[in-house]
Amino acid sequence: MNASSTFNFPNLAPVRRTSHANPQPIPKPLIAASSSVPEPGSDPPARKIKGSPQLARWSRARAIRSGRKLDRAGQRTQFLEPNPPLHPSDGVSLDPHDSTSSGSDGSDDDAEMTAGKSIYMVSDGTGWTVEHSVNAALGQFEHCLVDRGCAVNTHLFSGIDDVERLMEIVKQAAKEGAMLVYTLADPSMADSARQACTHWGIPTTDMLGPITEGIATHLGVLPSGLPRGAPGRSFPLTDEYFRRIEAIEFSIKQDDGALPQNLHKADIVLAGVSRTGKTPLSIYLAQKGYKVANVPIVFGVQLPKTLFEVDPEKVFGLTINPLVLQTVRTARAKTLGFSEGMKSNYSEMVHVRQELEFARRILAQNPVWPVIEVTGKAIEETAAVVLRLYHDRKHKCSMPRISKRY
Amino acid sequence: MNASSTFNFPNLAPVRRTSHANPQPIPKPLIAASSSVPEPGSDPPARKIKGSPQLARWSRARAIRSGRKLDRAGQRTQFLEPNPPLHPSDGVSLDPHDSTSSGSDGSDDDAEMTAGKSIYMVSDGTGWTVEHSVNAALGQFEHCLVDRGCAVNTHLFSGIDDVERLMEIVKQAAKEGAMLVYTLADPSMADSARQACTHWGIPTTDMLGPITEGIATHLGVLPSGLPRGAPGRSFPLTDEYFRRIEAIEFSIKQDDGALPQNLHKADIVLAGVSRTGKTPLSIYLAQKGYKVANVPIVFGVQLPKTLFEVDPEKVFGLTINPLVLQTVRTARAKTLGFSEGMKSNYSEMVHVRQELEFARRILAQNPVWPVIEVTGKAIEETAAVVLRLYHDRKHKCSMPRISKRY
Repeated sequence: MNASSTFNFPNLAPVRRTSHANPQPIPKPLIAASSSVPEPGSDPPARKIKGSPQLARWSRARAIRSGRKLDRAGQRTQFLEPNPPLHPSDGVSLDPHDSTSSGSDGSDDDAEMTAGKSIYMVSDGTGWTVEHSVNAALGQFEHCLVDRGCAVNTHLFSGIDDVERLMEIVKQAAKEGAMLVYTLADPSMADSARQACTHWGIPTTDMLGPITEGIATHLGVLPSGLPRGAPGRSFPLTDEYFRRIEAIEFSIKQDDGALPQNLHKADIVLAGVSRTGKTPLSIYLAQKGYKVANVPIVFGVQLPKTLFEVDPEKVFGLTINPLVLQTVRTARAKTLGFSEGMKSNYSEMVHVRQELEFARRILAQNPVWPVIEVTGKAIEETAAVVLRLYHDRKHKCSMPRISKRY
Repeated sequence: MNASSTFNFPNLAPVRRTSHANPQPIPKPLIAASSSVPEPGSDPPARKIKGSPQLARWSRARAIRSGRKLDRAGQRTQFLEPNPPLHPSDGVSLDPHDSTSSGSDGSDDDAEMTAGKSIYMVSDGTGWTVEHSVNAALGQFEHCLVDRGCAVNTHLFSGIDDVERLMEIVKQAAKEGAMLVYTLADPSMADSARQACTHWGIPTTDMLGPITEGIATHLGVLPSGLPRGAPGRSFPLTDEYFRRIEAIEFSIKQDDGALPQNLHKADIVLAGVSRTGKTPLSIYLAQKGYKVANVPIVFGVQLPKTLFEVDPEKVFGLTINPLVLQTVRTARAKTLGFSEGMKSNYSEMVHVRQELEFARRILAQNPVWPVIEVTGKAIEETAAVVLRLYHDRKHKCSMPRISKRY
């Protein structure tokens, strides 16, 4: 289905479709993007922006290293001329609330959002995959995101399962000069997205298409082409669904040393002093289907006997840098509204060191328990270490791995 | 860095690199993969397997629709001849535990795992992105995964940040006839993976490369090339990290109607009868940084007054099909070891209908609360609906979306 023949965009002048013929498509949008509203059809001004020549070098180097011809670089991710920003005077009124939200609702985020570049994420399902992948890719730009040097606004559109709504979003993306990333199971929807983006000169990436094609070939089976949660689809992975619910409920009940008599029922037991992230880590692992119990180590308080009776291979110690711990605890004490007296005991350096030393001794007495340093690690990073060790111990592979059967 | 020149694979005969010259590279591996240990170098037998011609048609149709030339199809996902399985007699001994785990440890999953096709997922970070994406893509094959018609084993290798370990995994993938999917931030690592896979004829997909390149061009900024959690990297998104921890701790404390006096502090309040998935949904949303409280609706029990005092735009009702609810409750009652008397009240159809009717009336009296049907929905699917509505109400966009600033 050709989207551009079905939908009529009377007032949006599409960019000239000359980009494919351009022998160096990558650096071009960089320059064009930095210029303010270029004349449509004119060559982008030769103004240089910070990082642009470097990026061009990097992109070209990567293309050459990966054996792609440069004029094919646009095949994986389409690098086209960004559409010049459009004004309401162009007669485009896609959004009846637009003026309200960015006008009178000045307190709204929307006004602030206009400062950065936009990434539109479109999915026919929940959209968590595209969101997760874009977040992971944005991790590659943290060096400039942190100080807002290259501010980015992401917009997730989930449950987009008809082509009309898809086209509304593409038009809105063109208007805003946004990039569009999509996961669309229906091949005709994916094609419409791609074609419309080409038509409007929107840079675009198909997140799941390549991997789905790859798996189809590997398995010798056709993909269903149906978004997750589509009516008429069998309920996905029922066993895993119930396993996750059970794991979450278990982990909540076992949080913070509750019910030590149930430690033997846990898949994983975490032990560490307060503010080593035991709770969020437990919950993260529970979401993945593991029953997790966590046991706090408190200076001078005896640990539950059962902790030393369970399989030591499932116990993990968490440790943290004393200075970082003290900072986190001071912040925490403020949040909890501790009195000065209580606060000092909980967050003062002497006590912090004493408690960490107490924990260190306990962990040292149980050498089978791996000790994981959590300082500066995100929850996911600590979780990855725990699960790698957990599966490695369970399956005794040469290379630590997490294996699953579907 | 050319991996094949650095590493010496003395006993593994690489496949002939003729695939690129093949005008129809896609259907070939399907046939080759179905044959048992083809003679190296010989043409794959012309045996047909189920789904193969259909898949070829589909692939070709997709390629044509998307405007790609067929002989370029291999550029996004490389479809090469799978390597013939290698035997220990070939002199390859990558895994000292191999024989142990699949031999004497017969109880191990590993033996069972050999039945399906393998997908190797390699990451220099946590690996959750590649795992998440592969899971999402596998959702397209649920029609045959459910009855094990196309069983798949996934193997996640996280924290792979040196080329030696990467090469071990590639060789292991070649040995097992696995497909390899990777997210490697360092361009030279990504290139090594790609080259080694080409060398050994392993089908492969670069999960984050295309989107990272796309974002780089869109922002005009170079990616850092550093994996998440790499030493020397600034700690990622500290504010969000603490916001998530706080949200998780809040949501655990508010679980199942606890502390109704705190409902006003919640971002989102869920109300529904027992077993509508309030707890796992709360926790899932908390992981995303939202403070969630959930309030159970129990037949004949008055709801907390505060529920009707908080902003009604943040309250969401959950409902479920009575038959499904009864089934779930019967299973639950068994797990909890309810006596017959208690069980009947909780899971009997009359009571289930009575309670759902009670809930329906309460929800109807509060028309601002959206009511979400959770029957057959995965936690993620319900969460997507909740967040779409939540953000839509907050920002009043024409197209419901979730927007974030980085």
